[in-house]
Amino acid sequence: MKKSILLFCLGIFYANAQQIKSPSGEISVNFQLDKSGKPTYNILYKNKTVVDKSGLGIVLKEEEPLNQGFSIENASQKTINETWQPVLGEQANIKNHCNEMVFNLIQKNTNRKINIIFRVFDEGVAFRYEFPKQPHLNYFIVKDEETHFNLTGDHKTFWIPGDFDSQEYNFNETKISEIDNNKLNLNNGISVKSLAGRYTVQTPLMMKTADNLYLNIFEAAVVNYPVMHLDVLVKDYQMKSRFAPNAIGDLAYLQTPAVLPWRTIIVSDDARKIVSSKMILNLNEPSKIKDVSWIKPMKYVGVWWEMHAQISSWDFSGTQDASQKNTGKKPHGATTENTKRYIDFAAKYGFDGVLVEGWNVGWEDWFGNWKEDVFDFETPYPDFDIEEISRYAKSKNVKMIMHNETSGSVSNYERRLDRALDVMQKYGYPAVKTGYVGKIIPRGEFHDGQAMVNHFNYVPQRAAAYKVMVNSHESSRPTGVHRTWPNYIAAEAARGNEFNGWSDGNPPTHETILPFTRLLGGPMDYTPGIFEIKMNVYNPEKTEQVHTTLAKQLALYVTLYSPLQMAADLPQNYEKYLDAFQFIRDVALDWDESLYLEAEPGDYLTVARKEKKKENWFLGAITDENPRATTVNLDFLTPGKRYKATIYQDGKNAHWQNDPINYEIKTMEVTSKTKLKLNLAAGGGTAVSIIPVK
Amino acid sequence: MKKSILLFCLGIFYANAQQIKSPSGEISVNFQLDKSGKPTYNILYKNKTVVDKSGLGIVLKEEEPLNQGFSIENASQKTINETWQPVLGEQANIKNHCNEMVFNLIQKNTNRKINIIFRVFDEGVAFRYEFPKQPHLNYFIVKDEETHFNLTGDHKTFWIPGDFDSQEYNFNETKISEIDNNKLNLNNGISVKSLAGRYTVQTPLMMKTADNLYLNIFEAAVVNYPVMHLDVLVKDYQMKSRFAPNAIGDLAYLQTPAVLPWRTIIVSDDARKIVSSKMILNLNEPSKIKDVSWIKPMKYVGVWWEMHAQISSWDFSGTQDASQKNTGKKPHGATTENTKRYIDFAAKYGFDGVLVEGWNVGWEDWFGNWKEDVFDFETPYPDFDIEEISRYAKSKNVKMIMHNETSGSVSNYERRLDRALDVMQKYGYPAVKTGYVGKIIPRGEFHDGQAMVNHFNYVPQRAAAYKVMVNSHESSRPTGVHRTWPNYIAAEAARGNEFNGWSDGNPPTHETILPFTRLLGGPMDYTPGIFEIKMNVYNPEKTEQVHTTLAKQLALYVTLYSPLQMAADLPQNYEKYLDAFQFIRDVALDWDESLYLEAEPGDYLTVARKEKKKENWFLGAITDENPRATTVNLDFLTPGKRYKATIYQDGKNAHWQNDPINYEIKTMEVTSKTKLKLNLAAGGGTAVSIIPVK
Repeated sequence: MKKSILLFCLGIFYANAQQIKSPSGEISVNFQLDKSGKPTYNILYKNKTVVDKSGLGIVLKEEEPLNQGFSIENASQKTINETWQPVLGEQANIKNHCNEMVFNLIQKNTNRKINIIFRVFDEGVAFRYEFPKQPHLNYFIVKDEETHFNLTGDHKTFWIPGDFDSQEYNFNETKISEIDNNKLNLNNGISVKSLAGRYTVQTPLMMKTADNLYLNIFEAAVVNYPVMHLDVLVKDYQMKSRFAPNAIGDLAYLQTPAVLPWRTIIVSDDARKIVSSKMILNLNEPSKIKDVSWIKPMKYVGVWWEMHAQISSWDFSGTQDASQKNTGKKPHGATTENTKRYIDFAAKYGFDGVLVEGWNVGWEDWFGNWKEDVFDFETPYPDFDIEEISRYAKSKNVKMIMHNETSGSVSNYERRLDRALDVMQKYGYPAVKTGYVGKIIPRGEFHDGQAMVNHFNYVPQRAAAYKVMVNSHESSRPTGVHRTWPNYIAAEAARGNEFNGWSDGNPPTHETILPFTRLLGGPMDYTPGIFEIKMNVYNPEKTEQVHTTLAKQLALYVTLYSPLQMAADLPQNYEKYLDAFQFIRDVALDWDESLYLEAEPGDYLTVARKEKKKENWFLGAITDENPRATTVNLDFLTPGKRYKATIYQDGKNAHWQNDPINYEIKTMEVTSKTKLKLNLAAGGGTAVSIIPVK
Repeated sequence: MKKSILLFCLGIFYANAQQIKSPSGEISVNFQLDKSGKPTYNILYKNKTVVDKSGLGIVLKEEEPLNQGFSIENASQKTINETWQPVLGEQANIKNHCNEMVFNLIQKNTNRKINIIFRVFDEGVAFRYEFPKQPHLNYFIVKDEETHFNLTGDHKTFWIPGDFDSQEYNFNETKISEIDNNKLNLNNGISVKSLAGRYTVQTPLMMKTADNLYLNIFEAAVVNYPVMHLDVLVKDYQMKSRFAPNAIGDLAYLQTPAVLPWRTIIVSDDARKIVSSKMILNLNEPSKIKDVSWIKPMKYVGVWWEMHAQISSWDFSGTQDASQKNTGKKPHGATTENTKRYIDFAAKYGFDGVLVEGWNVGWEDWFGNWKEDVFDFETPYPDFDIEEISRYAKSKNVKMIMHNETSGSVSNYERRLDRALDVMQKYGYPAVKTGYVGKIIPRGEFHDGQAMVNHFNYVPQRAAAYKVMVNSHESSRPTGVHRTWPNYIAAEAARGNEFNGWSDGNPPTHETILPFTRLLGGPMDYTPGIFEIKMNVYNPEKTEQVHTTLAKQLALYVTLYSPLQMAADLPQNYEKYLDAFQFIRDVALDWDESLYLEAEPGDYLTVARKEKKKENWFLGAITDENPRATTVNLDFLTPGKRYKATIYQDGKNAHWQNDPINYEIKTMEVTSKTKLKLNLAAGGGTAVSIIPVK
């Protein structure tokens, strides 16, 4: 690791306003105490204000608030310039370069101290509150955090409603002044909703200004604190941090020394700099796992989509499907025989793992009843011979992926987590997919509150002791903590592909927004790769469908970064389209380099990635509901080297709705001089593998 | 087990009022629906009304209440007459003899059904609500239970305030009309208080009527439901069930089929029938542990009273004592060396076990801060060599007793319980003392709520898997569940002897009330045996003291039943009074027979017990603040057999306050014809061992 830290200690400050600039000088932050001694900041990008003067402060329970009456005791600056290597990632080396300034504040009338720490990167600004150990502040309870983001115009925003229990919404693309949760169609397949208010939205909040600046408000390193939502004053373009309270209305219980998560504002006039930013990761702590040799990328299939397609059941007795409607008795998916079929398929086509959902008792009565003792995570259904399946998978060199649905009963899961991990260890499962569909128990808690954030961070920590990787579904959305716990290999925490199976689904624009929002926090287990786009192949009465072309499903393996990728469709469907399936077999999961070639949130994205320690490149291009023609310059390839490009593209009349499975595959030789013409259908995409010619 | 059950099915009932009588015929219950279809009952004892017509009903959340509009669909009666054997107990055989009547009720307008089940014993009445599996009632949330107890006069009551977080109060002896929590002195050493209301009291509630009937309202088999308190209409002598809500105001989450705990009214004109009643135990389920061979009584000493006496510290760094005042730096109690001293003492004098508190990290900052991650239950302080201590104890044939203080952070304990039990298994600890001093986490829960009741029942269930016995302190009070989980060997759940060390303490009357209240629910780890009565022996400034004579401390080993008994005082104190200490060494812990010879709540108690599978008898007699002379007829001894009685009695001028350590020991030969004269000092007692002459 190359590392150089320059430290400037600026001594006691008598001046009140301070400026911190990014290394490039393009971004500057001004920190100032106002007349009441309230901390404020503003942000300029290329000398243009992007965040107007905004207040900072913390309100405590049963104590004087920490939001005014401060003076600056000291300020110190340093430059951080280091490069580090993620265990798994989009690039082999990540540069962390910023200027940091720490303001030591004292509230004279209470003799309490806080620090506000700014880090200014070339792509944005981060700041956090720090509470040093001190005589007059030890244990404290946060009632409110008054972090403001006063914006300068009625920007276009890509927002989902502030819901303390779900982020599985489709994005709304409106002006700030048009944000209004009362106008949402809530018949959207989300089972548990806890909307925080009419004008509350979630972070990451992606925005675009009238003069084509891109702005993103988010956070990093959410540890022991609720995740941040935003209350919006829609007429004033002002936003204030908002958090899920616990059962009795408190936000967080802390003890000094403590830090809050980083609040982040990423800003650029180039959308590609937003979507490729590693700022969130850089703001997280390095890995706490020393031996990371067991943390490996995984490509997997699973007994899963067949339940979403409603042709089999999670429940042994055959009444459970994702719609939660009683659609008649269906066969149980997680049988020994069916699982072996998936193992055979995985072995034949070179997949690492097989996920099986519905293997354990509890599914017969698990949904929507706020029931505490649902699953024991140990007892298989009688038709799932875990011993035999583990033996069989091992003989085929395939790893099994455990599934622990908790139904939101976190108290039950924590009680049983060590035993659940014992089961994984006993049968050699290297990874677990967790699920949190339902209202949280302990009752009164939300998915996004402090206690649940702690739970979602706790599970990978416990799992690390067993060398088990975690893929968390319906958890609070990640904020880069997988840098610290790299076995937290992926999460869902947004509207995944599954919604296309049984609800109004995800519109073609959806996957063009996720990289600008949810994915800034970490890899997403989106489960792409659905080839049978329309669900009426399973049942002529069904009108649901995936809202992309087949080719776009392939491109998602590149555009939606994750070291854990599912080939989500059924084995028999892949065997129908083996030529297209070849791309899923080939595509890599871990990367030396990732190039975001073209990007516009809500419209399109083109990404090229170089496979870790290989010369193979994979390119994905996607579009929204509009067809798109573009030319990609392959100048990133090694000059003089010849490559075979296999291009998986939409057929001539392909269209996500009218003709989604229409695809073509062509091969050509390419070099660094090639300019590749791509034609994407409406809701379409292109996937390209670029392999050196030997 | 002798067992005979007679079943009478009475068919469809068109009549509305039903009477159920006890086997003896002395008690009768009348069950009736009033005009609105509300269930009601009244109770007569020897043809005198003791509970007047009182309503029954359950209020549900977001559903029609289940408290009126009922009709009786069916009623069926049976007689239960069986004898069973507890694993450990006051008697080898327990008779369960009662008449049961089940009323099947239907609420016609909602088509929902409940059953009300009565069991009428010779010593009292029990009833419970049952919710059978049915189409129109599956999951439900209890908002209120409207169980009324309308009494017939302004009885004398022995009450403690209804506090959802503590039962560690001294009893108040007043008329019902004088119950008033506003008049309490709350400077009583209890650290966490959550008083439920001005006129709320706890159960078991012991009462005495003006015409000398004894009445006790309590409950049995509290599983998956909060424990019952009582709201009192003090002018009307009417009481209504009251329960600790959860964090969001609900009482209980249930799913049909479900039963609520038994509500019990024990009634007699003989106080001895109350105090010796096994009704509560009979209403609990038989043992769920098949192999009970590892569940054994234990007599133990421990590194404990020295912290209460404030001469050593729980905390390694030496600032912690039970007063929670900073009284200067003291030595750490739980050192390897000090523990070995207790092990040596235990081995020398034939004790089974040694408890060590303060052995693990966390005590340095555990108290009163509602902190979640306090203890890990695994990491010893550096001066506590658990490996060496375990080895040493084993070499001396002494068992170590684990201590797990949770500080009320139940979420943390449940997360770590399996690991804590792993530690016990690894080092061969056969028992654990748990502690819950502090406000509960999950925050918003109370010690007495459904979630915590479930926790207190869960710990012994988990511990059973590791063959570990549980002694629970600061838990919700037991209701006979130790019949079902016999490794739940003892609990505190009332004001124990420890309060005498550092607070206003327990008045001489205290131990004469506990057997009529707290002990009806199960064995109490009261920790008797304090010989150095006055705390000024440790520090001349101290005014605290135990409020009994030394001889009464000995008698408590007989009068306060528990198969787990501590000799609570310091080894050096016992070695000062080895002649008196002999009784603690000799007294048994498990019994063939227990005879309550004399009893008056708040005044006195005389109990004789026959050691399990031996001919040895032990007798304990205690009095309140008044001296007492009595004669005990030893006609329970085997006729013709000669015994040596060793009598440990108060000295001539003994007095709990003025001369508490003044005791005499005499021996005499006794037979079944002996009438033993006892003289008990103010706050005094007598302990007698009666051993066959060989």
